[in-house]
Amino acid sequence: MSSVRICASIIDRIRNGGRWTRIKRSAGLGLLSAAVAGFITPFAAESADNLKPPASFRNWYHVNTMVIDKGSPLFEAMGGMHDVYANSTGETALKKGEPYPDETVLLIDLHEFTVSDGSYVEGPRKLTAIMLKDKKKYASTGGWGFQAWAGGDPTKPLVTDPTKQCFECHQARKDQDYVYSTYIP
Amino acid sequence: MSSVRICASIIDRIRNGGRWTRIKRSAGLGLLSAAVAGFITPFAAESADNLKPPASFRNWYHVNTMVIDKGSPLFEAMGGMHDVYANSTGETALKKGEPYPDETVLLIDLHEFTVSDGSYVEGPRKLTAIMLKDKKKYASTGGWGFQAWAGGDPTKPLVTDPTKQCFECHQARKDQDYVYSTYIP
Repeated sequence: MSSVRICASIIDRIRNGGRWTRIKRSAGLGLLSAAVAGFITPFAAESADNLKPPASFRNWYHVNTMVIDKGSPLFEAMGGMHDVYANSTGETALKKGEPYPDETVLLIDLHEFTVSDGSYVEGPRKLTAIMLKDKKKYASTGGWGFQAWAGGDPTKPLVTDPTKQCFECHQARKDQDYVYSTYIP
Repeated sequence: MSSVRICASIIDRIRNGGRWTRIKRSAGLGLLSAAVAGFITPFAAESADNLKPPASFRNWYHVNTMVIDKGSPLFEAMGGMHDVYANSTGETALKKGEPYPDETVLLIDLHEFTVSDGSYVEGPRKLTAIMLKDKKKYASTGGWGFQAWAGGDPTKPLVTDPTKQCFECHQARKDQDYVYSTYIP
C-alpha cells in the first residue's frame, strides 16, 4: 500500500465518519508523514500562487468538526481541532454531493486544543488551509488550487508544491471531486 | 461548593480554554448531574415557550468547538461534539466581550462522535440548544430565553423549566452576560 493510499484511507474514514478498522501499519506508513507533513511545515519560500486567506470564513457554512488527537498517525502532520467551512458558491454542491462549481472555496480552520478532565477545549489557531476551485487554472491538480497559512497569517504561506503537499492525497477522492468532507445534516 | 458552582466552574474552564486544575469532587458533584442533566433529558411535556429552532444557524458566525468526552463529569448530561454559533445580532458583542443586544441568539449544535484510531469524528445531531436575548420578556432568567430540541427537531423541545435546567448554571457567568463562550480569534 503506498503512502498516498494509506493517507487517503485514513482521511476518508475520518471525514466520512464511517466505521473504522484499525489500519495495518506497513512500511509505507513512514511515508505517510512525508506525504502530508508539508501541510504544516513552514517553508521559507513564498507561495507559488497568489491565493489569499479569506477574511470572513467564520460566517461561511460550517461543514463539520473533527479532532485529530495524539493517538492518531496523522497527529504530527494535522493534529488539532478542525473546523471545515464552505463558501456560498460551494454550499449547494456539498449538500447534494455534486461536483463543485468554479469559485468554490473549502477551508479548514485548524486550532490547537487542550484536554481538560475529559473535555477537548479549543486553543489558538495553528493554520488555515483552503481549496479554491478553478477548473482551467488548476487543471493539473483536479481543478483545485491549494494553499495554507501558518496561524492564518497571509504572510506565512506553507504550500510551495501543491501536487506533493496536497493533491497526492486528495486525488484518491476523485469520486468526490477530490474533497474528503461530506455533508453531515 | 454547591452543584451550581461546580457546574459553573467546569463549564467556565471548558469554554474559556483556561488552565485546568482537576476539580475536587465533593459531595455536591452528584447534584451536578441533576443540575444540568435536564439539558438533554427528553421531557414529555411541551415547551413552556414558543421558541423555535433557527433554520440557518450553520451560516451564522462560528464561535468555537468543544468535545466533551467520556472522561468528563459532564459526559452524561452534555457529552458530544459542540459547535457554538452566534447570529449576526450578537456577533459584535461576542467579539468585544460586551453585553448582548436583544434578539441575539447563541446556539449549541451538539453531535454524537466516534473515536477512530485517535481521531474524533462527527456523527448525527443529538440536540440544538439556544439562548435568545430579550431583556424584558426573560427578565427573571438574566434576559435570556432558553430552549433545546432533541435531534434539532422542533416538535421535541427539552426545556420545561428554564430556571432549573439552564439558568441555575448560567447565572454564575453574570459577569459575561450569563454566557460561557468567549471569543477565540
